[in-house]
Amino acid sequence: MAPLTPRLVVPIDVKKKPWEQKMVDWTGGRVRDDDSADDIKFLDLKITHYLSGPLRIVDAEGVPASPGDLLAVEICNLGPLPGDEWGYTGIFERENGGGFLTDHFPSARKAIWYFEGIYAYSPQIPGVRFPGLTHPGIVGTAPSVELLNIWNERERKLIETGHESLKLCEVLHQRPLANLPTSDNCLLGKIQEGTAEWQKIANEAARTIPGRENGGNCDIKNLSRGSKVYLPVFVDGANLSTGDMHFSQGDGEVSFCGAIEMSGFLELKCEIIRGGMKEYLTPVGPTALHVNPIFEIGPVEPRFSEWLVFEGISVDESGKQHFLDASVAYKRAVLNAIEYLSRFGYSKEQVYLLLSCCPCEGRISGIVDAPNAVATLAIPTAIFDQDIKPKRLGHGPKLRRLPDVLR
Amino acid sequence: MAPLTPRLVVPIDVKKKPWEQKMVDWTGGRVRDDDSADDIKFLDLKITHYLSGPLRIVDAEGVPASPGDLLAVEICNLGPLPGDEWGYTGIFERENGGGFLTDHFPSARKAIWYFEGIYAYSPQIPGVRFPGLTHPGIVGTAPSVELLNIWNERERKLIETGHESLKLCEVLHQRPLANLPTSDNCLLGKIQEGTAEWQKIANEAARTIPGRENGGNCDIKNLSRGSKVYLPVFVDGANLSTGDMHFSQGDGEVSFCGAIEMSGFLELKCEIIRGGMKEYLTPVGPTALHVNPIFEIGPVEPRFSEWLVFEGISVDESGKQHFLDASVAYKRAVLNAIEYLSRFGYSKEQVYLLLSCCPCEGRISGIVDAPNAVATLAIPTAIFDQDIKPKRLGHGPKLRRLPDVLR
Amino acid sequence: MAPLTPRLVVPIDVKKKPWEQKMVDWTGGRVRDDDSADDIKFLDLKITHYLSGPLRIVDAEGVPASPGDLLAVEICNLGPLPGDEWGYTGIFERENGGGFLTDHFPSARKAIWYFEGIYAYSPQIPGVRFPGLTHPGIVGTAPSVELLNIWNERERKLIETGHESLKLCEVLHQRPLANLPTSDNCLLGKIQEGTAEWQKIANEAARTIPGRENGGNCDIKNLSRGSKVYLPVFVDGANLSTGDMHFSQGDGEVSFCGAIEMSGFLELKCEIIRGGMKEYLTPVGPTALHVNPIFEIGPVEPRFSEWLVFEGISVDESGKQHFLDASVAYKRAVLNAIEYLSRFGYSKEQVYLLLSCCPCEGRISGIVDAPNAVATLAIPTAIFDQDIKPKRLGHGPKLRRLPDVLR
Amino acid sequence: MAPLTPRLVVPIDVKKKPWEQKMVDWTGGRVRDDDSADDIKFLDLKITHYLSGPLRIVDAEGVPASPGDLLAVEICNLGPLPGDEWGYTGIFERENGGGFLTDHFPSARKAIWYFEGIYAYSPQIPGVRFPGLTHPGIVGTAPSVELLNIWNERERKLIETGHESLKLCEVLHQRPLANLPTSDNCLLGKIQEGTAEWQKIANEAARTIPGRENGGNCDIKNLSRGSKVYLPVFVDGANLSTGDMHFSQGDGEVSFCGAIEMSGFLELKCEIIRGGMKEYLTPVGPTALHVNPIFEIGPVEPRFSEWLVFEGISVDESGKQHFLDASVAYKRAVLNAIEYLSRFGYSKEQVYLLLSCCPCEGRISGIVDAPNAVATLAIPTAIFDQDIKPKRLGHGPKLRRLPDVLR
Repeated sequence: MAPLTPRLVVPIDVKKKPWEQKMVDWTGGRVRDDDSADDIKFLDLKITHYLSGPLRIVDAEGVPASPGDLLAVEICNLGPLPGDEWGYTGIFERENGGGFLTDHFPSARKAIWYFEGIYAYSPQIPGVRFPGLTHPGIVGTAPSVELLNIWNERERKLIETGHESLKLCEVLHQRPLANLPTSDNCLLGKIQEGTAEWQKIANEAARTIPGRENGGNCDIKNLSRGSKVYLPVFVDGANLSTGDMHFSQGDGEVSFCGAIEMSGFLELKCEIIRGGMKEYLTPVGPTALHVNPIFEIGPVEPRFSEWLVFEGISVDESGKQHFLDASVAYKRAVLNAIEYLSRFGYSKEQVYLLLSCCPCEGRISGIVDAPNAVATLAIPTAIFDQDIKPKRLGHGPKLRRLPDVLR
Repeated sequence: MAPLTPRLVVPIDVKKKPWEQKMVDWTGGRVRDDDSADDIKFLDLKITHYLSGPLRIVDAEGVPASPGDLLAVEICNLGPLPGDEWGYTGIFERENGGGFLTDHFPSARKAIWYFEGIYAYSPQIPGVRFPGLTHPGIVGTAPSVELLNIWNERERKLIETGHESLKLCEVLHQRPLANLPTSDNCLLGKIQEGTAEWQKIANEAARTIPGRENGGNCDIKNLSRGSKVYLPVFVDGANLSTGDMHFSQGDGEVSFCGAIEMSGFLELKCEIIRGGMKEYLTPVGPTALHVNPIFEIGPVEPRFSEWLVFEGISVDESGKQHFLDASVAYKRAVLNAIEYLSRFGYSKEQVYLLLSCCPCEGRISGIVDAPNAVATLAIPTAIFDQDIKPKRLGHGPKLRRLPDVLR
Repeated sequence: MAPLTPRLVVPIDVKKKPWEQKMVDWTGGRVRDDDSADDIKFLDLKITHYLSGPLRIVDAEGVPASPGDLLAVEICNLGPLPGDEWGYTGIFERENGGGFLTDHFPSARKAIWYFEGIYAYSPQIPGVRFPGLTHPGIVGTAPSVELLNIWNERERKLIETGHESLKLCEVLHQRPLANLPTSDNCLLGKIQEGTAEWQKIANEAARTIPGRENGGNCDIKNLSRGSKVYLPVFVDGANLSTGDMHFSQGDGEVSFCGAIEMSGFLELKCEIIRGGMKEYLTPVGPTALHVNPIFEIGPVEPRFSEWLVFEGISVDESGKQHFLDASVAYKRAVLNAIEYLSRFGYSKEQVYLLLSCCPCEGRISGIVDAPNAVATLAIPTAIFDQDIKPKRLGHGPKLRRLPDVLR
Repeated sequence: MAPLTPRLVVPIDVKKKPWEQKMVDWTGGRVRDDDSADDIKFLDLKITHYLSGPLRIVDAEGVPASPGDLLAVEICNLGPLPGDEWGYTGIFERENGGGFLTDHFPSARKAIWYFEGIYAYSPQIPGVRFPGLTHPGIVGTAPSVELLNIWNERERKLIETGHESLKLCEVLHQRPLANLPTSDNCLLGKIQEGTAEWQKIANEAARTIPGRENGGNCDIKNLSRGSKVYLPVFVDGANLSTGDMHFSQGDGEVSFCGAIEMSGFLELKCEIIRGGMKEYLTPVGPTALHVNPIFEIGPVEPRFSEWLVFEGISVDESGKQHFLDASVAYKRAVLNAIEYLSRFGYSKEQVYLLLSCCPCEGRISGIVDAPNAVATLAIPTAIFDQDIKPKRLGHGPKLRRLPDVLR
């Protein structure tokens, strides 16, 4: 008796260019395994993401998923592509998209990571090694026309009215508030470029930077081996896409290009729960489409038992008080962690990269004690080859100077 | 050979009124073990918190902690007061402080929890039982005059200018943005009320609602048995205060009076790290005082291996797009969870209370993919006596109607 | 609405002698908090165990548990008696009972442990500190007459015929093979000593050293907070007894007096599963009474993520091959661990005591690959204040000499 | 900057016979993915194990490992061979080797397991699915001539004298006590069969069934991803061999062919600790060679938080009392678990197979309370699709009859 045989649906050949095939990494292999961050600095973010899909999902009888269904996607297995066991973490240049802390770290940087089975280490960030919580940054279904219009409309409105109401640091205004559809560097798979169809789609298709109601680029690090995500189905066949493979990522992916980005393989198992979207996902918003995916965490996440945790409150770096703002609080927690860890021989850029990609956890600890939200950033101490806990002065190991080999 | 003997420094007698002694719970025992939420509804929040302290911390030679030191406080043990093994979770009336979801749940509610050793259960929320991650909501040092002035100044400025820039739902404006010093219902321990000294202090003393640079009411659920918090010292002797005992709490403590509030005992072990604040806590802000505590998590947190996780993005309930706002994203994740769980026989108020106090985790999963922050709320499935995972319709247990006995 | 109120059924006053009240520790408080092991050396093991009970278990309607029922006992909470936060671990003198390694460690030793909340540390074994997996060594129901006869009969037979077939080390023969009923130092609670009844019972009552079908002195370290044990009921009312409180213990409790023995409190919650013994416990043996308890592990066991593990095979210290003997294999694993850890500044007696009481795990890894059983002993590395993992020579911290203050 | 590149040292082609290449599974691919256990029944165990190796280990300078060194082998990654994602668990016929419970289950049985990423499920044992704790059953260095002689001598002596002293059940005597060197079905890699050299080696070479001082077939389930085993080096170059890939196994591997046996890949990283064997492994036995490996557990073992645990004591099925015999106690614990689980619709053979291969834990809980050793078997409840905990009769799900499709 044989089981349902898994099928290879999206083959990859890492020797070829992305436009010669279906997928390498989210940048299409434009970042190289070398010492220079120039590729990060001049990376055109409009050419993202290279995805695998869309996959039309049918059940055992061949009946496709329908709007209103729930698509249960189990992430059976995933990993680096054999023979290509490396990845990178980058800081984007301020003028090229920046990141969560771009006002503090405006210049491009890059760290290369090599994989030894479950572990990653970087010549650019010595003294750390950690097991990956490997996951796809993106897994999502296709939006319906109605949902697509909602997205484009609300994001357009943000761009038009957003600047005056922004309350993070002023410098953040230099970051794009949203990325509206544009034919500039649009990736449309098999659609013939230059045709009227191509042009029409390019003018309407939502960019894949943000996660939305369909899942998409949520960059949730816990979507790892054995997890199961329940995605709403908006169109016939669900049209599942996935990609942006991460060997590891910290909560928030703070440096933006912040996971350990890699090329990888992914094994999925899909089940259609008929009518499940309507049954399980009650919309929170003005239309029936304002829903979000839910998921179950898998059983093989790396275990750590000792964590050093940094607190942040919603007072920004200028000393200004914000009202229960978890983003400001988390920013301060991350800055606190960067300052702290830079005492152990690291440059601040090294720590920023590290907190983007190591298995650290970002928590909303308190969100009601006005005016301060409290966010926390928990870092597993076992990833360091030195003891990073506070101790009586003169009782710890000598501080060391690590070579700053970031470029 | 005998060890340093622990000393009882703040005795409690639960038979007495709070003003007859030092401490009961954070409300001073004003909430009762009964079926009515009237006590919650009319609770005067200005009379908080009843704390134990301030404790002057000296080392083995009797030398007190000094500004610039770090105070390492290990939470050795804690629990309900013997003979008083119960607690409560409340929703505050909108007009009386509200909570994270006050625009959805404007009316006061209360659930009573009884403890069976490590477990809690509530007659008002049947079908759940969970082990407590017991912790003090408040542990903090005293501010210096300079720091106190910074607090009062920035919170005053928020009240004066905050309303126009607020971006959560409009209804939130009904919540107080901050609580400035006032002699109204001021708790000043042994200071004689009515004296000039009392009045002066009352006019300057920061209210203890928010967590701040000194720790304070951070409501971090992970400060449980065996954890260790490193607090900055701002004044001679550190003047450590603690209180607001929680049997259990979810990340965010969303209903505000949201933990399982109880009267309890607390055993602490303090160590002074001389010069440690200067060594380990680099300020992020305009003065040397803009620091935050750090802490280590203890080894006996309850373990869960199966979690159902709800996603939220920074689009609010009106469909409006916000820019990378983790608070909005978390609000939507919590609302999604409430809608979902209300399918299993609970009223939405029951779930709101439950998510405030059960060991659920609130994560900042993505904070860079403009314009959507992605927050997640992870709920351990083992706390329910039914299977709450999505499943093919007709394949789960019959939905049941639970009695809604909330008042 | 009030819950079922827990009742205090066995009060303890640690200021009194054990025969003046109901129970202190399993030795009745005969071991002192001092530097001498003389109390261990001359401890009369026949005077054990001082237990709390027997408790007659009835349901809410007052109907007692009956033979054939299953008694579900939840261990709600437990801990050291307030004001008495210390314990001890001992090695018994070879002539006074010995232990698992008595042929290697024939002399009495004692380590005192002090508790700081969840943690224990010992002046006699410096450099280690660990959270306790606190549990009762003994929890069991009373045997029926028929079961008691089975016990006495099979243990008598072992004594009569056992010696020639023993295959552990020869020196083990010096340990008592079993402890048959004797009026010598018999503890019979409220039965009047010297009466005919007392004498009759003393001549028949099984000694409480071994765990048996009823549970009893199983010394299972995982019966900690939140665990639930299902005990067979052999007599009317179940007659539950418990005691022998352990702050912490390693699997095997190898030095015999090997846990951190303490006086403590224990909160239990009992439920009668009518007919459950017959339903759930199928006998493995010649009669219907040959059953064993089952249990569920609680959710708050201390978590460790790094373990150093020692292997042992069923070849004894003389080089003799045994056939799939897990006891021999485990003995060798423990000896290997003692040799290894003694490189880090400890005497072998210190390590023997430590492995008896720290949260180490003893596993039967392989039991089929004839002729070698493979047993493993896993030690959490976090309990040491130094790095105990093997490393390239010259790359670890300097070996240190710890003071051997064992007596 | 590039890392040391991993090299493929032992390629496998699953389309070829084992003697045409280096390795498939430990049986050389002789067990098929079908419904008949005939292949298990007539499997010639003398043709085992097909191993990969021996590998000569040299350091970065090309200097080989030497006797007295310690070889640190990190298990970087491993898994099923792509395209061959299935395995099997078998019960050996009593006359063909048997297993731990061969006196209860004398007939051959087989269950096929299919893999879905990290999970395994079996058509023969419906209703269970679990993540694999994948590991090599065998990893070991080569013995020196002196060590080989010790092995052959002590195992020969066991065969000559063992039977009269055996104390497990009589029926166990039918199992071979040990497997001495024989030219019958000897696998000697590249040595030319029929030559004098081949014959000499065959007459001396230890069979690989048991684990020994060199590691070998220890079948330790925790040697999974990210673990690190420290092996003693007995000969120049260490001559590392490995194989017998297990997708999953329970402690003890009780049915002998008891893991989920599969063909697989394995990535290792070796480091030589010069002089480390002498430094870290103190012999316990008559010669300097009586040592055992030690290892560290990896960070990605599957996590379970709920366990149902079965106790066993050292009284055998006939009611006979044994003295602190952990093997007898574990046998009774396993029998208790089989009886219990067979109430939930399984045949006893199905449970026996399941407990051999699912991630259950076998513990030596008590080894000093004469005369009873207490062993426990802990089973994670999450692997079942039904609730297997005891409950009040009439309150659980209906018992169901599962199809017994074992052959």
